[in-house]
Amino acid sequence: MKDIKLLEKLNVANTSIQKYLGESLKPFGSDKIADGMRYAVLGGKGLRGFLVMESAALMGVPQTNAISVGAAVEALHTYSLVHDDLPCMDDDDLRRGVPTVHKKWDEATAVLVGDALQTFAFELLSRSACSDDPNIRLTLISSLARAVGAQGMVLGQAQDIAAETSTRPLNLNEISELQRNKTGALIEWSAVAGAVLSGEDPKALRRYSQALGLAFQIADDILDVEGDITIVGKAVGKDNEAGKATFVSLLGLAPAKLRAQALADAACDALVPFGDRAVMLKKLAQFVVSRKN
Amino acid sequence: MKDIKLLEKLNVANTSIQKYLGESLKPFGSDKIADGMRYAVLGGKGLRGFLVMESAALMGVPQTNAISVGAAVEALHTYSLVHDDLPCMDDDDLRRGVPTVHKKWDEATAVLVGDALQTFAFELLSRSACSDDPNIRLTLISSLARAVGAQGMVLGQAQDIAAETSTRPLNLNEISELQRNKTGALIEWSAVAGAVLSGEDPKALRRYSQALGLAFQIADDILDVEGDITIVGKAVGKDNEAGKATFVSLLGLAPAKLRAQALADAACDALVPFGDRAVMLKKLAQFVVSRKN
Repeated sequence: MKDIKLLEKLNVANTSIQKYLGESLKPFGSDKIADGMRYAVLGGKGLRGFLVMESAALMGVPQTNAISVGAAVEALHTYSLVHDDLPCMDDDDLRRGVPTVHKKWDEATAVLVGDALQTFAFELLSRSACSDDPNIRLTLISSLARAVGAQGMVLGQAQDIAAETSTRPLNLNEISELQRNKTGALIEWSAVAGAVLSGEDPKALRRYSQALGLAFQIADDILDVEGDITIVGKAVGKDNEAGKATFVSLLGLAPAKLRAQALADAACDALVPFGDRAVMLKKLAQFVVSRKN
Repeated sequence: MKDIKLLEKLNVANTSIQKYLGESLKPFGSDKIADGMRYAVLGGKGLRGFLVMESAALMGVPQTNAISVGAAVEALHTYSLVHDDLPCMDDDDLRRGVPTVHKKWDEATAVLVGDALQTFAFELLSRSACSDDPNIRLTLISSLARAVGAQGMVLGQAQDIAAETSTRPLNLNEISELQRNKTGALIEWSAVAGAVLSGEDPKALRRYSQALGLAFQIADDILDVEGDITIVGKAVGKDNEAGKATFVSLLGLAPAKLRAQALADAACDALVPFGDRAVMLKKLAQFVVSRKN
């Protein structure tokens, strides 16, 4: 399902966030680290930033606040990509259709650019541009730290690497836990951000984002099998080559597609109480399982 | 100058901080990442944490607050050590007298352990244990981000790596700037933390810490020439081998020692307004230029 209105809106949100990131990086001047940060962060699809902006809009949070928070999550996400692409990790040469940071510069630069992007994400969240309420900023900071630290994203990446050298492939439970940590926690943080910013109950957004995150990962595994490198913008077929267990290898291609679709529908169901106001978040859930990159 | 009272106090402060770090890491359970974080963070000398605790005591800040903030800076500092030791960076096998994280485990684990320690540092600062005042916690977070990000510590490390491959050695101005970024900014943040926590004017502590940071680096360069690996706990003679400009190579050994001593004295002078209450910070400045590891 290609939805022009959704893609337009995603693009508008991403442009606002990228503009804010560009402005915020201006004082950093131009050297290898600052240039590397810009190179890596500018050009993302902005899915996580969009989740922040749409959930914030749903909760009546001013857009300027949402842009700042969206910029922080995009910086954080980019740090994880730069480090995941390193030779000692996933060893990828291509990201978002261009050479990865360690290919364009070198490994030391990639480690430092990733490090500085993580720092930058927390710096952005400390700014009053995110919220006038200091306690809300602190909640964003502490919840982001939990989502991406040693019990969240970093753990997921470690589990992913361990799976590659394990003598037996992961089972469905293990791969679901890996996904929840590696990509799910940050997607959830992004979709719940609107509720945190407004002080509303995050329950519906949490249910939405948990289904969305899993749907997203299954779709990613499907793309790794079916995708075209020129459209996906990164290497494909890697999981299969590595003999890695994925949702596709465990479920089969057709059942994996059905599962992803069921999860997208479940994500939409979670937003029923919001009616038409949640239309973009619902469209996003459907888009995620039909995307080509 | 070996000062038993100072070393005792440093040890007591470090024990409190290490205990707090150990407790805070308990919920992380035991896996490669959590174990790596504990391995790396427990066993430091705790200089930066001590600066936090002493500056906090000077400003009348409760010790429990200081311990939490001190734990955060030690976690942050340890992340930088784990990454700096990587083969693509300084390529060190030994740190604090034991194998570096990438030697004990592997490079991917070291990247992730460092990443998680940085996240952990910001998480610690978001806790009310640091200060009841949310605005003070946010000031600690934003100032730490500036001290260690792309315009601070990370920039300094990039400048250090660039210097190694440069066709001409750095001059004294360049090496001073490198030091200010790489180690100075975090030392300054630590010593100023007491004033931030109490809302007092940080000027005197800032002057103290800037002199202290430079003295510390010059002493480090002297140790690299004169130190004994079994006492220093990491490789020595590396700078000379690499043909790297240091304060010793630029000034000569004897003038470097004089310069370090003059800076230690200047650091003490900055604290004259505090009289005897600043005795430990003054002793620390003298200790830094006479230490053997």
